[in-house]
Amino acid sequence: MKLLKDTVSGIRGIEWALSADTQKRLDSLTKPLGSLGRLEDLAKQVVEITKNKNPKLKDKVIFTMAGDHGVAVDGVSAFPQEVTPQMVYNFLKGGAGINVLARHAGARVVVVDMGVACDLKAASGLVVKKVGFGTKNIAKGPAMSKEDAVKSIENGIEVFEDEFKKGIDIAGTGDMGIGNTTPSSAIVAAVTGRKVEDVTGRGTGIDDEALAGKISAVKKALAVNRADPKDGIDVLSKLGGFEIGGLAGVILAAASHRVPVVIDGFISGAAALVAYILEPKTKDYMIAAHCSVEQGHKAALSFMGLKPLLDLSLRLGEGTGAALAMHIVEAGTRILNEMATFGSAGVSERHSD
Amino acid sequence: MKLLKDTVSGIRGIEWALSADTQKRLDSLTKPLGSLGRLEDLAKQVVEITKNKNPKLKDKVIFTMAGDHGVAVDGVSAFPQEVTPQMVYNFLKGGAGINVLARHAGARVVVVDMGVACDLKAASGLVVKKVGFGTKNIAKGPAMSKEDAVKSIENGIEVFEDEFKKGIDIAGTGDMGIGNTTPSSAIVAAVTGRKVEDVTGRGTGIDDEALAGKISAVKKALAVNRADPKDGIDVLSKLGGFEIGGLAGVILAAASHRVPVVIDGFISGAAALVAYILEPKTKDYMIAAHCSVEQGHKAALSFMGLKPLLDLSLRLGEGTGAALAMHIVEAGTRILNEMATFGSAGVSERHSD
Repeated sequence: MKLLKDTVSGIRGIEWALSADTQKRLDSLTKPLGSLGRLEDLAKQVVEITKNKNPKLKDKVIFTMAGDHGVAVDGVSAFPQEVTPQMVYNFLKGGAGINVLARHAGARVVVVDMGVACDLKAASGLVVKKVGFGTKNIAKGPAMSKEDAVKSIENGIEVFEDEFKKGIDIAGTGDMGIGNTTPSSAIVAAVTGRKVEDVTGRGTGIDDEALAGKISAVKKALAVNRADPKDGIDVLSKLGGFEIGGLAGVILAAASHRVPVVIDGFISGAAALVAYILEPKTKDYMIAAHCSVEQGHKAALSFMGLKPLLDLSLRLGEGTGAALAMHIVEAGTRILNEMATFGSAGVSERHSD
Repeated sequence: MKLLKDTVSGIRGIEWALSADTQKRLDSLTKPLGSLGRLEDLAKQVVEITKNKNPKLKDKVIFTMAGDHGVAVDGVSAFPQEVTPQMVYNFLKGGAGINVLARHAGARVVVVDMGVACDLKAASGLVVKKVGFGTKNIAKGPAMSKEDAVKSIENGIEVFEDEFKKGIDIAGTGDMGIGNTTPSSAIVAAVTGRKVEDVTGRGTGIDDEALAGKISAVKKALAVNRADPKDGIDVLSKLGGFEIGGLAGVILAAASHRVPVVIDGFISGAAALVAYILEPKTKDYMIAAHCSVEQGHKAALSFMGLKPLLDLSLRLGEGTGAALAMHIVEAGTRILNEMATFGSAGVSERHSD
C-alpha cells in the first residue's frame, strides 16, 4: 500500500501557469490565431504536464497489459480464453495490431502479464507481474481481494518506474484479456451511474443472445458486489481485472512523474476511471486517444471531462488507438518547437482590428 | 484542353473487385472482425485504387499551391495580400505548419506558384506555374477566362506528372492564398445549392462586420456570374482561383494514375468539387483528411459523399490536415501488410456462431 500511497501523494495538480505564455508563442507562429485547433491545445497540455517549454516526445512507450477474467466462463466473449496467452506471444513476436501501429508511431511496446490464467513461457521482452491466474467471476462475487487490487495497481506502478529509468516522454495504455469488456462495463456503470444497457457493448463481436447474457452478467456483478463508486480500490477489487489495475497504476505513475499518458479505448478508460477516483488530479495528465465503438467508453470519458482525439470506429484495444493518437500529440509539440514566427519568417501579421 | 481531356478520359471507375478478398485477408489477421474500423476501410480503398494487394505508401507528396484573389480588396480576409508570397517563401524555407507536419508524416512538399499577384524570387524548390497575377474580383465578374481555368487545371496536372516521375504512392492537397475561403464558399454554394450564410465562415479569423461583408461578396459573386453547377470549367472560371484550379488538376491527375489523394480542408474541398464535376469517378480516389472549422467544408464533403477522417478543429489549410491524415491512411496499409494471421501466430479463432 505504501507505493500506491506515495505515488498518489506525489501527483500534483497542473497549475496551467504556462498556458498563456505558450499560447502567446503559438500566436507568434506563421498561421492565423488558433488555426491549428486541438494541436495547439495538445502543445499547451504537454508543456504544462512536463513543465518544459519545448517538450520533445522522443521516447514513446505503450504499456500493453494482459489478464484473464473469471466471468469469461459465462460466454461473454466471442473468443475462447486461450486467446489471451496466445495474443501475448503474438505481441512478443511483433505480429499484433499494437506492434504494427507502435512501429508506425515510433513507440516501443512493453508487454506485461498482470494475470493471465496460465503460466506463460519465459520470453524475451515479457514482463511478468502476475497477481493471479485470472480473476474470479464478478457475476458471483468480488473479482479479487482488496490486497490483490492494491498489488495490481502497485505492480503497474513498478512496471512504469522500471521503464521510466530507460526514458519515457509520453506513455500509452493498452490491454489484452478475453472477456475484459465485461468488467469494464461493470466499472463504468458503477462509477458513472449509467444504465448497464447503455454501457455494455458487443466487445469482440458477440451476437444478440450473448449480449443479453453479458448485460445480465454485468447487472449481477453490480448487485452482488455493491461497489462504492467513490472508492477506487473497492471498485477495482469487486469489478475489475488485474490488467485494469495494472493500467491504473501506469496512469498514476505517469502523472506522478509528469509524463503525459494517452488513454486507449474502453478497457483503458475503465482503468483511467479507477485512477481518477483514487486521485482526480490524474485527469490533467490524460489524453483520450479515441472514441471506441464500445458505447460505455463515451460515458467513461465524459465522466472525467475528456474529449477523444480520434473517432475511427476502433474496438481492438491493445493500445492501438493510443499509438495512432501519439502521432497527433507529437504533431502538436513539433508545431510549437519547429514552426517559424512571423518575425523570423518576415511574414506580415494580421490587420489590427 | 487536350491534356485535361486526356487526363479525365484516363480516369477509370473503381471496380471494388478486390475488396472482398482484402476483407477476407483483414479478417484472417489476429484481431476481432472489423475491429480496426476505418483503418480497414482505408486499406481496402488503397488496394482498390492501386490495384496492389500489398500497397506500400512510401513516397508521400503534398502539393501546396498558392494564388491570389481579386476579391481580397473587399476586406474578406484578416491578413493583407502580401502574406501570400511571404508564406510561399516560408514554405520554401521549411518554417510553415505544412513543413512541420509533412516532416512528421514523412512527406515531401511541392510548393507551386499558380497565380501569386507578384513575381516571386527564383528559389530552390519553387515550381512556377503562374496562370496570372491573381484572379479578378469575383464580386464584379468572372475570376478568370475559361482558357485560364483550363490552363490552371492543366498546370496542376503537369505538376503532378513531373512529381509522379520521381515517385508518388500517395498525394495530398494544400493551398495558400489570402482571401481564398471566399471563392471556395462561392464554389460550394454554387455547386451544392446551399445558402451562402451556411457555407461562409470566418476564414483566417474575421470579425462579425467583415463576415457580413464576405457573405455579401459571395452573394454578389453568385448573382453576377451565374455559374453552371454542372460545368466544372464554368464554375472554376467564374468563381475560382488559380490554386483551386491547380489542385483540381492534381486530384484529376492522381485519379488518372490510380494514386490515392488526400483532400485537405475547405479550399481543397472546393477544388475537389471542381474535379468531381468534371469526372465523378474521381471521388473514389479521394480520402477526406479532416473536417475543417469552416462550415462550408462539410457541405462540400457531404455533396461528394466523403466522410472525413479527423476532426481536430483545424482551419489552416496548406495541406496540414492532409499530412496528419496520411499517417492514418498508412496505418491502414501497414495493418494489412504487417499483421500476423491467426494461423501464423497460432491464435485460436472465434467461437463458431
